[in-house]
Amino acid sequence: MKEKKISQAVIKRLPKYYSCLRHLEEDNVAKISSSEIGKILDITPSQVRQDLCNFGGFGQQGYGYDVSKLKETIATILGLDKQYSLIIIGAGNIGRALLGYTGFKKHGFEVKAAFDVKTDNLKYDGIEVRHMDELAEYIRTHQVDIAVIATQKTVAQDVADEVIACGVKSIWNFAPIDLNVPKSVIVENISMTESLLVLSYRMNELE
Amino acid sequence: MKEKKISQAVIKRLPKYYSCLRHLEEDNVAKISSSEIGKILDITPSQVRQDLCNFGGFGQQGYGYDVSKLKETIATILGLDKQYSLIIIGAGNIGRALLGYTGFKKHGFEVKAAFDVKTDNLKYDGIEVRHMDELAEYIRTHQVDIAVIATQKTVAQDVADEVIACGVKSIWNFAPIDLNVPKSVIVENISMTESLLVLSYRMNELE
Repeated sequence: MKEKKISQAVIKRLPKYYSCLRHLEEDNVAKISSSEIGKILDITPSQVRQDLCNFGGFGQQGYGYDVSKLKETIATILGLDKQYSLIIIGAGNIGRALLGYTGFKKHGFEVKAAFDVKTDNLKYDGIEVRHMDELAEYIRTHQVDIAVIATQKTVAQDVADEVIACGVKSIWNFAPIDLNVPKSVIVENISMTESLLVLSYRMNELE
Repeated sequence: MKEKKISQAVIKRLPKYYSCLRHLEEDNVAKISSSEIGKILDITPSQVRQDLCNFGGFGQQGYGYDVSKLKETIATILGLDKQYSLIIIGAGNIGRALLGYTGFKKHGFEVKAAFDVKTDNLKYDGIEVRHMDELAEYIRTHQVDIAVIATQKTVAQDVADEVIACGVKSIWNFAPIDLNVPKSVIVENISMTESLLVLSYRMNELE
């Protein structure tokens, strides 16, 4: 690991800061202290200051942070000033849940197409489910920033290989499997089992 | 934060260690070094040693870790030597994806019932979807270790309040909202938006 690299833990907290600041801005809060942010997010004020320091010191001792400015800066760090085109591969329950979720669009993520081995002329929220046979051709002829893998575990690696071969550089993976990808490809996993095991750990920690 | 408390980052890595060790055991690997574990999980060997040290030193310099023993110890830490009864509230796409996922059972998590405002006599993988009106009575008369909230964002807090009032102590939350709960209740969130924003951060970091 490189010394200068921002730690995974900090990166994972950035969306929480962003969401917190967005709500504060909606509530017309102009300034906020590290203690107040810490209280909302259940982390220590010094952790808040340290985290935000990683991205340039936005706060001023005794004055707190400018909510809108800090929100905009974090949005830029998170790449939310851009637009991303997503395709969803696998239109089972998870795929359909993603197709039906409107929350991503406001952050600049737009689902452009969905693919499955079964299509049955289905449409979810205006997006037609295409046959997997059309996947490669679609990627070659459209801008695809992120491929979402929402297939069965058994075919997830094959799907990853296919989209990578077609030039996709970023994968959001919902299949319960660790994908093997070249170093140049980014994979972000959503692991339900890991989350459940963290819950179970915390239940046992209490006992 | 208490000094002795295991950090969130370490806790979140525990399921990864567990899954890695489970696969090694299946492949009949008896011993493994911190470097090898690190290589599989893409973390430094010193981080591996430090993490596992938190739970008592299982390794021996120059000999590595006993795969089965370490797996069992981590399983116990994660509470996987126990059985948990889950109920799923909300039988939309996410709820149905959870009902259909068989992977939890092998870790001791069993879905016992599902609830929704619409029932239509639906059954998923042998589990009948009951009406929300039956929720309180069900919790009062059955063992419910974990309530899974897979409802719309708008009703998630009400559902949380109801299950907590009936005595549920642990919530696995899929709704995109931060639940307000008493200190004694454990909530583990799965946030798809946060995961997507981490992906977006990493895409921009590369540029």
